[in-house]
Amino acid sequence: MKFLRYSQHGRPAYGLLEGEQVSHLEGDIFTNWQRSGKTLPLAELELLAPVQPAAIFCIGKNYRAHAEEFGGPPPERPIVFLKAPNSLNHPQAPIVLPRPEQSVQIDYEAELAIVIGKGGKNIAEAEALAHVFGYTCANDVTARDWQKQDGQWARGKSLDGFCPLGPYIETELDVSDLKVEGRLNGVVVQSARTSELLFSIPYLVHYVSQAITLSPGSIILSGTPAGCGMARSPQLWLKPGDRFEVDIEGIGILENPVQAAG
Amino acid sequence: MKFLRYSQHGRPAYGLLEGEQVSHLEGDIFTNWQRSGKTLPLAELELLAPVQPAAIFCIGKNYRAHAEEFGGPPPERPIVFLKAPNSLNHPQAPIVLPRPEQSVQIDYEAELAIVIGKGGKNIAEAEALAHVFGYTCANDVTARDWQKQDGQWARGKSLDGFCPLGPYIETELDVSDLKVEGRLNGVVVQSARTSELLFSIPYLVHYVSQAITLSPGSIILSGTPAGCGMARSPQLWLKPGDRFEVDIEGIGILENPVQAAG
Repeated sequence: MKFLRYSQHGRPAYGLLEGEQVSHLEGDIFTNWQRSGKTLPLAELELLAPVQPAAIFCIGKNYRAHAEEFGGPPPERPIVFLKAPNSLNHPQAPIVLPRPEQSVQIDYEAELAIVIGKGGKNIAEAEALAHVFGYTCANDVTARDWQKQDGQWARGKSLDGFCPLGPYIETELDVSDLKVEGRLNGVVVQSARTSELLFSIPYLVHYVSQAITLSPGSIILSGTPAGCGMARSPQLWLKPGDRFEVDIEGIGILENPVQAAG
Repeated sequence: MKFLRYSQHGRPAYGLLEGEQVSHLEGDIFTNWQRSGKTLPLAELELLAPVQPAAIFCIGKNYRAHAEEFGGPPPERPIVFLKAPNSLNHPQAPIVLPRPEQSVQIDYEAELAIVIGKGGKNIAEAEALAHVFGYTCANDVTARDWQKQDGQWARGKSLDGFCPLGPYIETELDVSDLKVEGRLNGVVVQSARTSELLFSIPYLVHYVSQAITLSPGSIILSGTPAGCGMARSPQLWLKPGDRFEVDIEGIGILENPVQAAG
């Protein structure tokens, strides 16, 4: 099933995608929901990120080729970092670049995001998938100059709107071998399969939950394939007028335009 | 004025400390509040962290002596990192250690926390204090082994309950030269004055808000004085039965007992 969220008179509402129609849902998608009986055409809806995350955990360098393009060996254990809540962004909403004097190295990162459904701490790897509600697409947009100069990645990963998410949470999906693709202006710039992940989805849920309680709606971005703009020659930075798509097999396409600072 | 939050029949309520009595408040402390007329004795209340933070931003190595005890030069710019929301903890609530097989290097960090009242982005340093609601005490509890092995600090700073906060938000305080003290079992282990901060409170609000929207209730932990357990010889780690106090002039004392994993 594909869950989504949309703006209804300025307030978020949940829906279930059924063909080109959306069934409006009442209740809480993580515990108890039902169809209200109202349906709306998908094309008329302003989609929101399909969840307001309780926390945005992310994993760095989780594809070998991406670790290598950044000049490092594959990590011995998952590299966990956080994005701040102001980074959340919506399908089709603009990725607004910072002012040029703030940062001029804005990069894309197509990723599969895990959406936690059942909270927990110290989750066993064998039990991990029972805690997953579903999966969606994410773009871990990054100011590379800030990331590099800071050492800590939090700030360069947390600019306003630097975490587009969506369009749907797919709840019935075997994520062991899915294609994850990033396209810039229609050109494939990142492509890998989740079978290439250094640390698997169940392992990541297990690992992040060590002494850290995951809540319903917490998300874990599982890492990005090789092909980032920073590792290219010449380097490739997002610029106003660009359009970036994160396309994950079985989920859908998360598309965002890029805009200059207002 | 000293704002606080307490548990009222299991739900959070806001209050204003007036001597040994607490005036219950209605409304939102950041926008519009009023006394309900009900008063309660402070001694009978179960205090909560005085705010549910929108985000927990933190600053690393912001006292020269602390940067030096960790073997590095003072940073050229503020080092910004995040603590996850599950780290929030309350006055007098236990800091629960992780299982010994997870981490055995749990350290304290007494800090002045800035509580944002008026949201904003790209806040000028000269305007920064107008965005501050007040100040409280924080303990940036840290699993040093995780912090070191991960490189990224997010995980070692985000264990459940690793961000005790409180007991009060003091809104009328000149923070340019306050004593910040950490005491372990009554013994002073950290002591500095905010006049020694490498990056001032107004500068931190300005800096963190670059391309990042701060919301009412976002907090910024301003950094910890020298004297951390990791830098001592022999090293000093929190253990069950310990009691840690963060004492900041003009605010109050944030005290937490330490417990073994349940």
